[in-house]
Amino acid sequence: MSKPNVIPLQPMPLHSTASESALSNGARLKHVIESQQFTVPLLMELFERSRGMERVAARGGTLDYQHRILTTLFYAPSTRTRLSFEAAMHRLGGRVLSTENAGVFSSEIEGEQVEDSIRIISGYSDVIVIRHTADDGARRAAEVSAVPVVNAGDGNGGQHPTQALLDLYTIYRQRPLDGLSVAIIGELDRGRTARSLAYLLAKFDRVKMFFVSPPQLQMKPDILEYLDEHGVRYELESDIDRVIGEVDVVYQTRIRPERVRDMAGRGNDGRGSDGLRRYAIDSKVVQRMKPDALILHPLPRTVELDKSVDADPRAMYFRQAMNGLYVRMALLTMLLEKEPAAGSAWW
Amino acid sequence: MSKPNVIPLQPMPLHSTASESALSNGARLKHVIESQQFTVPLLMELFERSRGMERVAARGGTLDYQHRILTTLFYAPSTRTRLSFEAAMHRLGGRVLSTENAGVFSSEIEGEQVEDSIRIISGYSDVIVIRHTADDGARRAAEVSAVPVVNAGDGNGGQHPTQALLDLYTIYRQRPLDGLSVAIIGELDRGRTARSLAYLLAKFDRVKMFFVSPPQLQMKPDILEYLDEHGVRYELESDIDRVIGEVDVVYQTRIRPERVRDMAGRGNDGRGSDGLRRYAIDSKVVQRMKPDALILHPLPRTVELDKSVDADPRAMYFRQAMNGLYVRMALLTMLLEKEPAAGSAWW
Amino acid sequence: MSKPNVIPLQPMPLHSTASESALSNGARLKHVIESQQFTVPLLMELFERSRGMERVAARGGTLDYQHRILTTLFYAPSTRTRLSFEAAMHRLGGRVLSTENAGVFSSEIEGEQVEDSIRIISGYSDVIVIRHTADDGARRAAEVSAVPVVNAGDGNGGQHPTQALLDLYTIYRQRPLDGLSVAIIGELDRGRTARSLAYLLAKFDRVKMFFVSPPQLQMKPDILEYLDEHGVRYELESDIDRVIGEVDVVYQTRIRPERVRDMAGRGNDGRGSDGLRRYAIDSKVVQRMKPDALILHPLPRTVELDKSVDADPRAMYFRQAMNGLYVRMALLTMLLEKEPAAGSAWW
Repeated sequence: MSKPNVIPLQPMPLHSTASESALSNGARLKHVIESQQFTVPLLMELFERSRGMERVAARGGTLDYQHRILTTLFYAPSTRTRLSFEAAMHRLGGRVLSTENAGVFSSEIEGEQVEDSIRIISGYSDVIVIRHTADDGARRAAEVSAVPVVNAGDGNGGQHPTQALLDLYTIYRQRPLDGLSVAIIGELDRGRTARSLAYLLAKFDRVKMFFVSPPQLQMKPDILEYLDEHGVRYELESDIDRVIGEVDVVYQTRIRPERVRDMAGRGNDGRGSDGLRRYAIDSKVVQRMKPDALILHPLPRTVELDKSVDADPRAMYFRQAMNGLYVRMALLTMLLEKEPAAGSAWW
Repeated sequence: MSKPNVIPLQPMPLHSTASESALSNGARLKHVIESQQFTVPLLMELFERSRGMERVAARGGTLDYQHRILTTLFYAPSTRTRLSFEAAMHRLGGRVLSTENAGVFSSEIEGEQVEDSIRIISGYSDVIVIRHTADDGARRAAEVSAVPVVNAGDGNGGQHPTQALLDLYTIYRQRPLDGLSVAIIGELDRGRTARSLAYLLAKFDRVKMFFVSPPQLQMKPDILEYLDEHGVRYELESDIDRVIGEVDVVYQTRIRPERVRDMAGRGNDGRGSDGLRRYAIDSKVVQRMKPDALILHPLPRTVELDKSVDADPRAMYFRQAMNGLYVRMALLTMLLEKEPAAGSAWW
Repeated sequence: MSKPNVIPLQPMPLHSTASESALSNGARLKHVIESQQFTVPLLMELFERSRGMERVAARGGTLDYQHRILTTLFYAPSTRTRLSFEAAMHRLGGRVLSTENAGVFSSEIEGEQVEDSIRIISGYSDVIVIRHTADDGARRAAEVSAVPVVNAGDGNGGQHPTQALLDLYTIYRQRPLDGLSVAIIGELDRGRTARSLAYLLAKFDRVKMFFVSPPQLQMKPDILEYLDEHGVRYELESDIDRVIGEVDVVYQTRIRPERVRDMAGRGNDGRGSDGLRRYAIDSKVVQRMKPDALILHPLPRTVELDKSVDADPRAMYFRQAMNGLYVRMALLTMLLEKEPAAGSAWW
């Protein structure tokens, strides 16, 4: 590869000052791999830009990036996440190379490594958005890429940092982030969006998180240890009723029925998929929430979030999707920045 | 969704003056769901614009729509229809978000509804072209969409209105539409394009339609009742030879072999797929047509339309495909119109 | 089809003066079907333009082609080749219609012919890049297309001419092409890229080729007869060790394990996929190469080219991929040329 600007990604400690300062001290944002790489100042910069992008999008977008190419390299299909990134690039005036299901071609050639694909595709484009099936797929891609890499979800227990960024932005647009109490509900052990959001919320002062989940699907130790180390308050809970009335934000996610069925006879009440209903939100559950609570969901949804909630002014989930466009536009402008802007503190 | 311009689609009576005036009385075209929503003045406006688009395309297109995004959301693949819409948007200078097979992601999440997808995707784009597997898929999409929705074919017995519009435009470019006699041949009970075309032709004066089909696959009562109510002349026919010499337009469509095989022993002659040949058009059948007849086919074709017909000057089917580009360009300009043009009578 | 510029493709003799002069004598490049259609002057013109494209791409591209549409019509998926063409079109400022797997829709309609698809799609676009599963798929497409067709790989024993062009360009950028000795290694009987490259190398003076392959997978007679007729020197070899130290260029390609397994008991040593290792290149094999040898591989790779070679300055395979972008940009400018440029000798 003849491009000179390959910047090897250093493995980043989860919350270290070193990794933060590498990103915040006059350096520009290189890759988006995991939510904990973002410092609070970087988040504020991103959110400020995102607000600007709301105005840019309302005007129909800009043509400033008409020479730049974004490639979406999805080894597993995810139409909405893909289209959101592609729309963001188009609203910036840019161009898109798209793969709906790159897994088709990698399975064709057994033994083919993501590194080779990235080395080649990073020669064709200015930024790569990757969804990979392995937990470290996005990081491996970033290590060899000549251009910025964005993690659009990796593995089963990996991360989905841009989803967490848009989730947080949605809250930020409604209220201050310090002092929030947040219930995160669902299949938390494999919940990429829940995991990524927990890392982000932990950056703010006096936040308290309630992880609400069947005990077998609770948040994994890596997150809990991270929170312990940073003195962030949290509680593990299996009963939605005990927290729903006191939190500022309800972050609902999906529980796949087969995972609750698997639990039958293992401490579960044996009701099979009925167990799901204990974690569902409908118009009755909503009545017990604070009058100014926010209801978020990364979508798609099934039974865990009833349509009867859609008309409630506290329902934020379609606004989340719109915010995803703005946050991704803002992220792309930061990643495609050629040089740190003069006078800029952190990018 | 923060966009203010969600206009709920009212269920439209098939031919009612009310629905027509809603579209024609200073209002702009909001969605394209079924061919009967088009009034004759609206058709004439569309066709006039389509002629203009022939000239625009010959010049390589325009850049007027470079800030607008079209999304093709296809729950079943249809490469040609998809590419035709996408080419139309590109010739207008616009941008495209594309899904070849969105069914992949919807099957991933059981119970996911098209409404949720549309609510999200309509925040990313300025117009959505949808092919859905359910008969009411496009209408359901339009009911929740913040932006115009175009039906690119729905269900098994649904509609494919833009195909019918380009079919009619192809005839219009050759002769007056009033007084036409048209043979519509094929598997008419499930023929989306045949059904949509019948609705359109019924708008014009003194039209006569011959529906030529094996009796078991004849046009369904909803169309026939519609024609009866509006005093449109038609005949049901099972023998192509009895009509081929007297019609102005032959609209040939496909009969799937398995549907004729199913008929063996049920009134059929038991010849299995040989029964198909009785409905096929080849160079011999063509000899019996009027010298100025028009031969149309929505394509793709198999045995029902022989290649020996291609060189006949009456063969219009490749011209139909080109006209599809112009008609779709014209439709998109009408759908993306921000405000009703001053002095415009019907959009 | 109303477009007037349908230029039927004449079957071209392999090396005939007639076919060359049709392309080189003031005529522009019409289609890219097979590598032997390129004369040396045309190759030099292409390579000169490709060098210019390196500079154009470094500046982020041009907007000169913003009214032109390229369609990638892939009946079998090949993400990298597709993205390379699409990136080339975007860097020229153009637009792209894309099919990742058009086979899905053609299988839907049995009996559908590529000719019908091309007649339609060539009305939507200014150039078509096709990957077809039949050996003559690209030629059949060119015969009916109203716009230029580029073969992006056809059949099992067909060609992949643009890959060979970028391979040759990669060598050309490093040293003179006359007098080269080249080892072409792999599953040569079905190797599209190896076959296309052999045709191209034969155009140059004093070239010698070594075809290194298990005997059962050797280069097919059509190539060998072509080389004999044109007095080009070559040797068939089954032992990589006997040539690796004396050639200027090592062109490594893949051997599918199942094809070596099939050989067990038929003259093979019966070691199954171990037989593959005898044709693999790793850091030890590289030590025996000339100090200025070039190592090429069309990628993707598996065991036949070890990652330990990547850091060797003689490894050209990632540079090949970048060169693919430049060569394809240059080819597109030649194909989209409206009129022969004044004073131009061969296009």
